[in-house]
Amino acid sequence: MSDKLASQIEKIIRKAAGIEHGPVVLHEPFFIGNERQYVVDCIDTNWVSTVGKYVNLFEQLLSKVTGVKHCIATINGTAALHICMLLAGVQRDDEVLTQALTFVAAPNAISYCCAIPHFVDVSPVSLGVCPDRLREYLKKIGEIRGKELFNRLTGRRIRALLVMHTFGHPSHLNELKKICDEFNLLLLEDAAEAIGSEYEKKHVGHHGLLSALSFNGNKILTTGGGGAILTNDDNLADVARHLTTTGKVSHQWEFYHDCVAYNYRMPNVNAALGCAQLEQLSEILTKKRLLASRYSSEFSRVDEISFFNEMPKVKSNYWLNAILLKNVSRDRRNKLLDALNNDGIMVRPVWNLSNTLPMYKNCPSDDLSVSQKIEGSLINIPSSPSF
Amino acid sequence: MSDKLASQIEKIIRKAAGIEHGPVVLHEPFFIGNERQYVVDCIDTNWVSTVGKYVNLFEQLLSKVTGVKHCIATINGTAALHICMLLAGVQRDDEVLTQALTFVAAPNAISYCCAIPHFVDVSPVSLGVCPDRLREYLKKIGEIRGKELFNRLTGRRIRALLVMHTFGHPSHLNELKKICDEFNLLLLEDAAEAIGSEYEKKHVGHHGLLSALSFNGNKILTTGGGGAILTNDDNLADVARHLTTTGKVSHQWEFYHDCVAYNYRMPNVNAALGCAQLEQLSEILTKKRLLASRYSSEFSRVDEISFFNEMPKVKSNYWLNAILLKNVSRDRRNKLLDALNNDGIMVRPVWNLSNTLPMYKNCPSDDLSVSQKIEGSLINIPSSPSF
Repeated sequence: MSDKLASQIEKIIRKAAGIEHGPVVLHEPFFIGNERQYVVDCIDTNWVSTVGKYVNLFEQLLSKVTGVKHCIATINGTAALHICMLLAGVQRDDEVLTQALTFVAAPNAISYCCAIPHFVDVSPVSLGVCPDRLREYLKKIGEIRGKELFNRLTGRRIRALLVMHTFGHPSHLNELKKICDEFNLLLLEDAAEAIGSEYEKKHVGHHGLLSALSFNGNKILTTGGGGAILTNDDNLADVARHLTTTGKVSHQWEFYHDCVAYNYRMPNVNAALGCAQLEQLSEILTKKRLLASRYSSEFSRVDEISFFNEMPKVKSNYWLNAILLKNVSRDRRNKLLDALNNDGIMVRPVWNLSNTLPMYKNCPSDDLSVSQKIEGSLINIPSSPSF
Repeated sequence: MSDKLASQIEKIIRKAAGIEHGPVVLHEPFFIGNERQYVVDCIDTNWVSTVGKYVNLFEQLLSKVTGVKHCIATINGTAALHICMLLAGVQRDDEVLTQALTFVAAPNAISYCCAIPHFVDVSPVSLGVCPDRLREYLKKIGEIRGKELFNRLTGRRIRALLVMHTFGHPSHLNELKKICDEFNLLLLEDAAEAIGSEYEKKHVGHHGLLSALSFNGNKILTTGGGGAILTNDDNLADVARHLTTTGKVSHQWEFYHDCVAYNYRMPNVNAALGCAQLEQLSEILTKKRLLASRYSSEFSRVDEISFFNEMPKVKSNYWLNAILLKNVSRDRRNKLLDALNNDGIMVRPVWNLSNTLPMYKNCPSDDLSVSQKIEGSLINIPSSPSF
């Protein structure tokens, strides 16, 4: 490879992955437990669909792992986010604050409610919404009327703040919760990438009124496609179950549905996979954190690169390890992405900032200079637990 | 059992099912092929999520079975219906004509587009939208302006007709297509229950611009949860793929999404189940039709009951066999449902008519007297292919 930096990066990745030649993928599932057995059990017993013992067991195991009282399994993380929005009372023409540096599912879930994403900047330390910048911004554009926050520029109600634990790195939850209380905002956590991640020794998902997990194929644990809604609120949990199961009112034989609702419940065959995966979580987390620490030490010797480490008081699951170019340059980043991918090393940039996507380019937004710097310098590197 | 009619019905069902004692369920999956092998293959190869060979294979097999050029696998039938609506250009405040006698997913999918379901009556022969009644109704309330149909009572555009192949019985497709052409309506087929059903020797799904299938656990074939969009239109198929996969624009490493879209793609592990199931379709259909013919002959000897048979020119998959009380009585129906279910014979009524559900009670509607009669007299009886 003619690019010296790309060569250096490739060498470190190949060493960490233990793959001297051939492709190194970004993140592969890790099936070393009861996955086959549980899935075949669904087929043997004829329980493959949205009712079944593994769905309930998966939810119980998730509650145990996260410490959050109620976990409602969904078909994917996007569905979980959508239901979180509905449960937070997000309505047509409301605004929901969220980071521009996020996966498109977040602004999409807001759009599904006919609400408007309102983009704010992230902290370079957490990659999640920056508390200091958010407070300054809300002082400027926010106006509390009665018990609700309004955007004085657009006149619209701002209903909630959706914060993401980017790549598994917990956001500044204490500080953000304080701001939400101060400004009468509901806090929601997009924990799609953060199963196993902790904030002050507690699993993420306890600060937000509701949180969303994802178990897509590229995640630390996978159910094929899957997600979950987490909440400590009994009533919201009941409504979440109702809204994800077509709003059907329980009855021995009648088909009565009492609200517009969704077919969002995770099927048993996917939950079976999830149960087997959850049994492996602590082993997978150990492997992931070991890989991150190897990467961290190797990249500390590369002048042009910094490795993204967890901030104090948190424990990241290091879902996708990330390196950053010290000299921000989207052009340089792109060249590295091309060179490495062409060499079989699957690397990726962060998502294009949501405010630059055609359907969200006219949404309200704070200054996003930190997000832009991160976008122009961050590269995710292969992070499979099997390394 | 003290109810003589209930006893007679139970006897016929137990004989058909070959189950003398214990519960007889309504419809069980039938796994007799490569289900285990294909699903385990997904786990062995690490391809469980929304990209994988079984998703493509499932779509190809579906195309082969239905003869429809493009099949796009989705997470469930509701998602397929939702995308059909979007592709038909259904917009906020449009009306979509659909039968009141349908599963709630149909009006829900219309609502997801912020459009309004507009209920019409069904034919007692097909259980799908009645062509004669529809034409009369549209002559009365419809008004063509330019190339579009408007409801002269509400002033709203009527964009499409969604017709259901209820319990697998094909609707009057030729007649409905003609009316749609006459009134500038798009025809959409809710074929959720109709895999394997034929209209004039051709699989359903060819008359509608778009059709939706379901592979929920209670269906003839199941993928745990799953569905598909069918269309012969190349361009709509491309857009369907795009809208079901988050609107991501294909690129080696970039995350650029160009529209508000959905996470609706069927995971590989579910598609694997579907491939094995599709291989068994013709055997399952044979068993289903044999069961229907046994039921038909047995119930012909019960004075108070008529068995619902397919109409001429169609071949029904007889997903759920249905009997009807000759003397319509919701009260009598309920007593039979209670008696049989309490005796372990899982029977169900048709769905509560959509226009009676709280969220749809103010939607526009034609006279629904046939639907009401069917609601007050129909009972679905156990129909598993394993009988």
